[in-house]
Amino acid sequence: MTEYKIALVGFGGVNRGFAQLVADHNAEWKVALGFSVRIVGVTDLFLGSIVDKDGLDAKQLVALPTEKGAFAQLPGGNAEAFNETVIKHSGADIIAEATFTNPVDGEPATTFCRWALESGIHVVTTNKGPVALHGAELKALARRNNVAFEYEGAVMSGTPVIRLARQALAGSNILGFEGILNGTSNYVLTQMKNGLTFNEAVTQAQQLGYAEADPSADVEGFDVRLKVVILANELLDARLNVSDVTCSGISNITAQDIAQATADGASWKLIGCAERDVQGSVRASVEARLLPGTHPLAGIGGAINAVSFHSELLGAVTVSGPGAGRIETAFALLSDIVAIHTVYGK
Amino acid sequence: MTEYKIALVGFGGVNRGFAQLVADHNAEWKVALGFSVRIVGVTDLFLGSIVDKDGLDAKQLVALPTEKGAFAQLPGGNAEAFNETVIKHSGADIIAEATFTNPVDGEPATTFCRWALESGIHVVTTNKGPVALHGAELKALARRNNVAFEYEGAVMSGTPVIRLARQALAGSNILGFEGILNGTSNYVLTQMKNGLTFNEAVTQAQQLGYAEADPSADVEGFDVRLKVVILANELLDARLNVSDVTCSGISNITAQDIAQATADGASWKLIGCAERDVQGSVRASVEARLLPGTHPLAGIGGAINAVSFHSELLGAVTVSGPGAGRIETAFALLSDIVAIHTVYGK
Repeated sequence: MTEYKIALVGFGGVNRGFAQLVADHNAEWKVALGFSVRIVGVTDLFLGSIVDKDGLDAKQLVALPTEKGAFAQLPGGNAEAFNETVIKHSGADIIAEATFTNPVDGEPATTFCRWALESGIHVVTTNKGPVALHGAELKALARRNNVAFEYEGAVMSGTPVIRLARQALAGSNILGFEGILNGTSNYVLTQMKNGLTFNEAVTQAQQLGYAEADPSADVEGFDVRLKVVILANELLDARLNVSDVTCSGISNITAQDIAQATADGASWKLIGCAERDVQGSVRASVEARLLPGTHPLAGIGGAINAVSFHSELLGAVTVSGPGAGRIETAFALLSDIVAIHTVYGK
Repeated sequence: MTEYKIALVGFGGVNRGFAQLVADHNAEWKVALGFSVRIVGVTDLFLGSIVDKDGLDAKQLVALPTEKGAFAQLPGGNAEAFNETVIKHSGADIIAEATFTNPVDGEPATTFCRWALESGIHVVTTNKGPVALHGAELKALARRNNVAFEYEGAVMSGTPVIRLARQALAGSNILGFEGILNGTSNYVLTQMKNGLTFNEAVTQAQQLGYAEADPSADVEGFDVRLKVVILANELLDARLNVSDVTCSGISNITAQDIAQATADGASWKLIGCAERDVQGSVRASVEARLLPGTHPLAGIGGAINAVSFHSELLGAVTVSGPGAGRIETAFALLSDIVAIHTVYGK
């Protein structure tokens, strides 16, 4: 029986959700997945850090109060975030990196990933920053150190997108994709179709916890742009930077536009997409598009996310599912560990 | 470089499509997938058979006329279908079984699969019969002989369903599924929504080649029932027989039912589904259902197929794509070989 020693880097909703999964399901994973998990360290810039090579109690971690320096309340814990110690010296086989996404330089997450990979430790992450901004470097670093760098949760939380394309669609010759990759903006567009104004819909999304106080990353397409870079580089072997993706959002769409679309049986959607042209170069964009009712993404409503892959052999294959949520995103980390186990665990 | 020697059993649309894929893509598979394919034998009850351990010309196979005994026209070919010789003695590593589905006893395909598995030869198939009627026996036979029995194409052609659930959703705790698993009946319902009567829509589906002269397997749910058995046994660890699945079709749905649904923003769909209850037993059915407009399957129109998985950790994840087509189904055979290569090829 394989047991993976895991260190959690960042202890917000996602890694707390992962600790919850460990608390609830570790015993059944032995039977269902062929491995179990031991949490040997946690570090968080706000909460502090803790290491125990014998394994931390996942239930106790889940119950930790969200207070500055809270890890000092646990035996052996510390109010300070000893990130490097937890990543390099906790004895972890795998680092689960789930700190905040920094869209400018991907830090400090990228440094955390580098530390782990350079030390021969697998990395699983739900963080768009390191993958979108430094993906090629980190993938090469992982290859050189014969470890995995997995990031299913960076796009559409635990809904399989990257792995679906890489494994199940291998050989289908993916030519491009179109996606609804931001739940907040799709919720806003759906509620506008239901009669709200743009501002009313944004306010409602904020009340429901979908949108931040500053909703611009969601409604102006910046969040989607990072995901388009990740998917284009992964699925189309592109080498795009964020600045290669033209980007506009949904804030110019009026109630009248929406009403006209509905009358025509069409839907406005914020679409992130990329396609490879016959010369092999990849063009990518984020923009609001008017989709006919027969388009596979036209019916995707509310906070649901979806990606439609276009391939030479299958035409359009579309997957939809949750795009956010702490347990849904924590599942992405588990699915990354399952993938690592498939390759390295036998 | 791994080369898989493949024998094709049945040479109708699907395996002819597979030969087309080999003719067009074998060279690129070496780079993209890490293996190439050599067709060492073909047998077909109508066309006859041929074996060449040095490899048959895939292009020549594709061009074979559809005439009784046509393989006799090729050097070394025979008008008779020497099935057992081709399966057991062509030197194949993998049998691609794509004969017709026999919904009564799964023969002769099941015997073909047994011959291969007993001889230590992997089987990939797009045939629902052996999997739905004798799946447990054939899976056990494969395990005992340390070979693979793969059948992605038995449900939704090359659209990943079985492998998506088995690999990418592993650990999500799938509790049930609902699917639109028959393109003909979905096309009929879609065209009734567009104003045709049931009989007009069936006639149109026949003219387009979706429906057989006797459309009852499609519109009465019998085809879907086989797929529900396959998915329930695969995804929910059920041990269902065909007779365990209650089954009704769409022939009683009237134009008036459809009009009323449309007025209510709802859609009639032929749904194959199964779910595990809290005691662990699995209930499965095929029936026409009235889906609200927000249901993930409500917007699936035309001949497209889709499955919505319900899991404990992700809620609903839905995949849609082609449910038929010769190249689309042949791709399923390729994806099965990719899966075999992942496990056995390293």
